[in-house]
Amino acid sequence: MTFTLNTPLDMHLHLRQGDMLKLVAPLSAQTFSGAVVMPNLVPPLSTREQVLAYKNEILEATQAHEPFTPLMTVFFKPYNREELMVLKDSITGIKLYPQGATTNSEGGLKDLQDAEQTLKYMEELKIPLMVHGEEAGAFVMDREKLFMPIFESLAQKYPKLMIIMEHITTASAVELLDKYDNLYATVTLQHLLITLDDVAGGLLSPHLFCKPIAKRPEDREALLGAALRAHPKLSFGSDSAPHPKHAKECCGCAAGVFSAPIALQRLVQLFDEHDALHHLQAFVSDNAIKNYKLDLPSHSVSFEKVPFSIPAQYGEVVPFEAGKELSWTVIES
Amino acid sequence: MTFTLNTPLDMHLHLRQGDMLKLVAPLSAQTFSGAVVMPNLVPPLSTREQVLAYKNEILEATQAHEPFTPLMTVFFKPYNREELMVLKDSITGIKLYPQGATTNSEGGLKDLQDAEQTLKYMEELKIPLMVHGEEAGAFVMDREKLFMPIFESLAQKYPKLMIIMEHITTASAVELLDKYDNLYATVTLQHLLITLDDVAGGLLSPHLFCKPIAKRPEDREALLGAALRAHPKLSFGSDSAPHPKHAKECCGCAAGVFSAPIALQRLVQLFDEHDALHHLQAFVSDNAIKNYKLDLPSHSVSFEKVPFSIPAQYGEVVPFEAGKELSWTVIES
Repeated sequence: MTFTLNTPLDMHLHLRQGDMLKLVAPLSAQTFSGAVVMPNLVPPLSTREQVLAYKNEILEATQAHEPFTPLMTVFFKPYNREELMVLKDSITGIKLYPQGATTNSEGGLKDLQDAEQTLKYMEELKIPLMVHGEEAGAFVMDREKLFMPIFESLAQKYPKLMIIMEHITTASAVELLDKYDNLYATVTLQHLLITLDDVAGGLLSPHLFCKPIAKRPEDREALLGAALRAHPKLSFGSDSAPHPKHAKECCGCAAGVFSAPIALQRLVQLFDEHDALHHLQAFVSDNAIKNYKLDLPSHSVSFEKVPFSIPAQYGEVVPFEAGKELSWTVIES
Repeated sequence: MTFTLNTPLDMHLHLRQGDMLKLVAPLSAQTFSGAVVMPNLVPPLSTREQVLAYKNEILEATQAHEPFTPLMTVFFKPYNREELMVLKDSITGIKLYPQGATTNSEGGLKDLQDAEQTLKYMEELKIPLMVHGEEAGAFVMDREKLFMPIFESLAQKYPKLMIIMEHITTASAVELLDKYDNLYATVTLQHLLITLDDVAGGLLSPHLFCKPIAKRPEDREALLGAALRAHPKLSFGSDSAPHPKHAKECCGCAAGVFSAPIALQRLVQLFDEHDALHHLQAFVSDNAIKNYKLDLPSHSVSFEKVPFSIPAQYGEVVPFEAGKELSWTVIES
């Protein structure tokens, strides 16, 4: 039994830099045809030169798996109209982090009022806004829900701005998708599968710890339901974020789940188990191509129903569900 | 500035066995005059012979710090009246674990109906029931709250049975204390100080991971409020539970916070900060002596307002707030 996806995309990916990038970028490119690459490097990407240099680094690392299209982003800060005009053709969106919300977000935005003029230009120039939607400083289980009023006010204030609620984890965010035409979302693999129970209900599981943290069972159900029916405003975005093993398992573990190398195989299995394979093409590609107005070289990847064991590590990075057996494997092309 | 506590007690303590016991028991005895020692060994304690042998092991390990009174317990299982008559004088209570709720609770109770006859005997013989009140299998943040109806039905069904809700973590449990005369509770140090934010809101903190897991800010406020006013049915119980460093920091971390060596110093600081030092004697001793009807040799411990740095490790065990500076220190007697 085989199954084929055309131009599967990861609409939210962290590739890091240097040796880590050389390790993980090819692992994404093995199955995905393209990915939205997050800009939270040190220092964060904010100029066309930085974007093009980083894009070249990614293209070099993935050339064995062409075509792989890095869809570039810059870090949100106040940009003037000229700066945005220069950036426009080299980016797919601008990523806004509330200050301190996640890894390397220390330079994130403190006050949304500082963003007004930039957001107006982005709306005019049709540059999507990608938002890490967590209220910094709030109780960890409430951070996303408390950010919903901010999404509502952004959606109302900039009705032609495409706003993407990134890596949503709550039923509240799923509901909001249907309330405003200009609100979209990505969702990760792990948030379709796990809750806080998996992170801290039995033993503590550093490799399932990410931001936003996995929430309640009813949240997971809402996310899974929206994914399985390929909600037209929802796309897959792995938020795959590699950390070396020691940074996950030492005292004070870094946040981030590394799922990129096995994300598509695991999604095929998940959608197959729910008799929803016919919706997977939309969830991992068609919705994104339509909503983000992407023009990408067509490229397909096929899977067969043959067991595949997830490796314990890729380099020094432990992947999501390490050691677990999946029922589908990639057919190497 | 000095402050003295008379006969401070830890009403919920894990001492383990062998080398670990030899390491941690003296650390409790350095400041505490006695402790309720939990029976979840491998195998769990259930006979008078086991209790007396374990008690001797503890007395030997703590003889440098006499007087230290181990208040012994056995693991709940169906006991007949004769067995309870034999046990009665050597124990302070019987500890009931729902199956699978925490470390070494695999032999815990599956169905409370199996407990009825034993609970009637305990009520008659005035043997306190100490309960780990979590609904096994429920979502981690709901487990204690969902156990409240079980406490209510136990309190109603056995009105003369002293029932102790152990290591409570929720506002729900604090409320229930005032609803039934025969319901009591213990609370740990860490649950007066931390919420899930401290465990998983920033980096993941294995050394703050325990069961029941720390809950929401409003829960912590309710617990702290009850402690600071020395609620007459609430006692301090550290639930201090040592695990070797590697078992806390490897992939899949064991549950348990090790607070015993610094618990009293930290409580003095906490109550001092809240201008509630005059209530600490009741919280750490008088309430317990009255409610459990204890008769113990009097013994005092004094503290002075001199900074004290919590060591990084005691043996191979990392304590609560390792490396942090406290404002009070024990005056060695």
